[in-house]
Amino acid sequence: MTDTPSNLQIQSDRLWGAILETAEIGGTPKGGVRRLTLSEEDRIVRDWFRKACEDAGCTVTVDALGNMFALRPGRDPSKAAIGLGSHLDTQPTGGKFDGILGTLAALEVLRTLNDAGIETDAPLCVANWTNEEGSRYAPAMMGSAAYAGDFTVENILARRDGEGITVGEALKTIGYDGPDAVGTQKFGAFVELHIEQGPLLEAEAKTIGVVEHGQGIIWYDGRITGFESHAGTTPMPLRRDALATFSEIVLAVERIARELGPNAVGTVGEVTIANPSRNVIPGEVSFTCEFRSSDSDTLKALGETFAAAVKDIGSHRPRVEIDLEIVWRKEPTHFDPKIISAVREATEALGYSNRPMVSGAGHDACNLNQIMPAAMIFVPCKDGVSHNELEDATQADCAAGANVLLHTVLALAGVAKAA
Amino acid sequence: MTDTPSNLQIQSDRLWGAILETAEIGGTPKGGVRRLTLSEEDRIVRDWFRKACEDAGCTVTVDALGNMFALRPGRDPSKAAIGLGSHLDTQPTGGKFDGILGTLAALEVLRTLNDAGIETDAPLCVANWTNEEGSRYAPAMMGSAAYAGDFTVENILARRDGEGITVGEALKTIGYDGPDAVGTQKFGAFVELHIEQGPLLEAEAKTIGVVEHGQGIIWYDGRITGFESHAGTTPMPLRRDALATFSEIVLAVERIARELGPNAVGTVGEVTIANPSRNVIPGEVSFTCEFRSSDSDTLKALGETFAAAVKDIGSHRPRVEIDLEIVWRKEPTHFDPKIISAVREATEALGYSNRPMVSGAGHDACNLNQIMPAAMIFVPCKDGVSHNELEDATQADCAAGANVLLHTVLALAGVAKAA
Repeated sequence: MTDTPSNLQIQSDRLWGAILETAEIGGTPKGGVRRLTLSEEDRIVRDWFRKACEDAGCTVTVDALGNMFALRPGRDPSKAAIGLGSHLDTQPTGGKFDGILGTLAALEVLRTLNDAGIETDAPLCVANWTNEEGSRYAPAMMGSAAYAGDFTVENILARRDGEGITVGEALKTIGYDGPDAVGTQKFGAFVELHIEQGPLLEAEAKTIGVVEHGQGIIWYDGRITGFESHAGTTPMPLRRDALATFSEIVLAVERIARELGPNAVGTVGEVTIANPSRNVIPGEVSFTCEFRSSDSDTLKALGETFAAAVKDIGSHRPRVEIDLEIVWRKEPTHFDPKIISAVREATEALGYSNRPMVSGAGHDACNLNQIMPAAMIFVPCKDGVSHNELEDATQADCAAGANVLLHTVLALAGVAKAA
Repeated sequence: MTDTPSNLQIQSDRLWGAILETAEIGGTPKGGVRRLTLSEEDRIVRDWFRKACEDAGCTVTVDALGNMFALRPGRDPSKAAIGLGSHLDTQPTGGKFDGILGTLAALEVLRTLNDAGIETDAPLCVANWTNEEGSRYAPAMMGSAAYAGDFTVENILARRDGEGITVGEALKTIGYDGPDAVGTQKFGAFVELHIEQGPLLEAEAKTIGVVEHGQGIIWYDGRITGFESHAGTTPMPLRRDALATFSEIVLAVERIARELGPNAVGTVGEVTIANPSRNVIPGEVSFTCEFRSSDSDTLKALGETFAAAVKDIGSHRPRVEIDLEIVWRKEPTHFDPKIISAVREATEALGYSNRPMVSGAGHDACNLNQIMPAAMIFVPCKDGVSHNELEDATQADCAAGANVLLHTVLALAGVAKAA
């Protein structure tokens, strides 16, 4: 009877093979992945993931929002499961690591424990959360958000994509409208491995980011209503140009984020002109925008300054109406000190260079941290690029992250003495 | 044997009925029309128009670009036909008068002459020009532009719509890839009736606009290349935001047209973000824009000032690349004094209030004026609104315009002495 050997390592080639194999599902010519949540590609990768977890001896359950849970029993049934995992959906032109690394590394942790014949005290539960990306449906991270109680399940099921298809309908279509109530699977803690999606680890040549905080986010949906008219015959002073108004908003978002930075970003990511034509003044424009900061006061200032700027734009363009709705607001995340320590100790025990980090992106672990102790592990990605087909990470860094995940969850779950 | 009676009038109810009948073809719930060029709806209205012209005793021919010509013989076969007509295609959400009034009023002129048993010296030829609107294919007015020699037929046939379908393919699909070479049907002059698409006639309570000039136009296609990256993790100073760059261009177009006005307009009508997502910084944006003026020097200044502004935007956003291509440039039109006089004399003989006008929009007659004497007749439209489902005009004004068209073409064609 011995403790888990401290030099226990995941199988780097097996993890890398799983990443490359699933990258074919929705793979793009440029080496990225297009696997929108609840699409046919998402169904295929979910089926792959379910089978892999079952082959690893897990029981896989699915809740009413399609969140998937692969449970590996522990020795002590009274202990809550230690959660690990991430998401398998991608951006419309995303990469093969964002979310995927964390989910497949969690699977690799189970496979490694199986190979070594190690049983944990607490059960382990690998999760694949529905719609982390938020591209097809808002809000992002909706599966974990509903799990954490930020939204009701009914609210989420009724959300529609650009074609009017509800989440509920999409779940039925791919057969992932699971029987379990959201929240049925409980966790004692949650650890998520992810690529950094930013430039810092690479720039400082650090292998592991010990994530202590996550940015707060405000998401807006906007609509500008002017009046469609002929581009040749409508004099400039009589125009009610929704696109020119929109353009002032875009530049205001950029200016405000710069002025309130460096701990602030602001982005307009989407715009649609209703009935666009080359020789018609745009009469109706819809768009999305967002601000982020890891500091609560800065996030508040971003929202207030933006509201004032929009009001000012509206007042000097009185013939155009601007409607702005906050569709999601999340305060900055401060991860649990105990889980952060477990990540740092595992990292140092394994001898990896590391630094504390703030997550620029939102993650399922940020939602879960509201109702359970959680933390995250980051590994570098090439040039800090993510949400892009060119997203890249090295096999060695992915393996390092998976090893830190392995030893973090072992420490949290407790290692049963093996016979 | 008598001259044509000066009080000869078209049948207002028959013209109005034809407008309402064809408005059903592609009719929208809001009372507008969606009849994109070379679509199935365009085929149906073309078939309707062909039959109506044949029923009125005309021979209908179609050229290689789908331009339709309904010829009513004259007494003197040595004389070139006097052309009248406009177009039957519409904007994506257009109205039921733009183009349609001029084409159906021309048909009504033939019907009126038939009823009255009047033969003209010169033949009359009613034209329906392909793709005046330019919404599905650029350039606008492509049928008359190729007829006037601004483009080769091959160039136009190879143009593609947003789905990659060429003009040649679309013509074949609807069966309007006609056997005649473009230019086979000759004209001695051309007169086009159209709604004003601007506010002046209504504001001044004038019935008829005697159009003397048309605006020159520059059309651009633009593309901005930055870099897609994560909206949460990419610091503001490191961004290569194509949409923020685009927004500066939109506001420059607006500012330049205002500064060089009042005889100047500038519009950005279309924008598309490649792979848009709420939490991705736009990396690639494509757009269209245009300037117009009836003054050649002002048009030149608009183009030069805009080029300088774009260069300036590029220089303070060096991490983003801006490509701007002029896809069409047309100098201002100065209509033929003889045809303008014929319009004015017919208007005054009929007793309609009138004023000289500049056309803010481009029209087929502007193209044709390059190779034959041409002019236009305008009637008021409600609130100056066009390229909009709310486009409206009164039955009385439409009839007045058709009467002016009738007497203008009679004067130009010469009235044979009836037995």
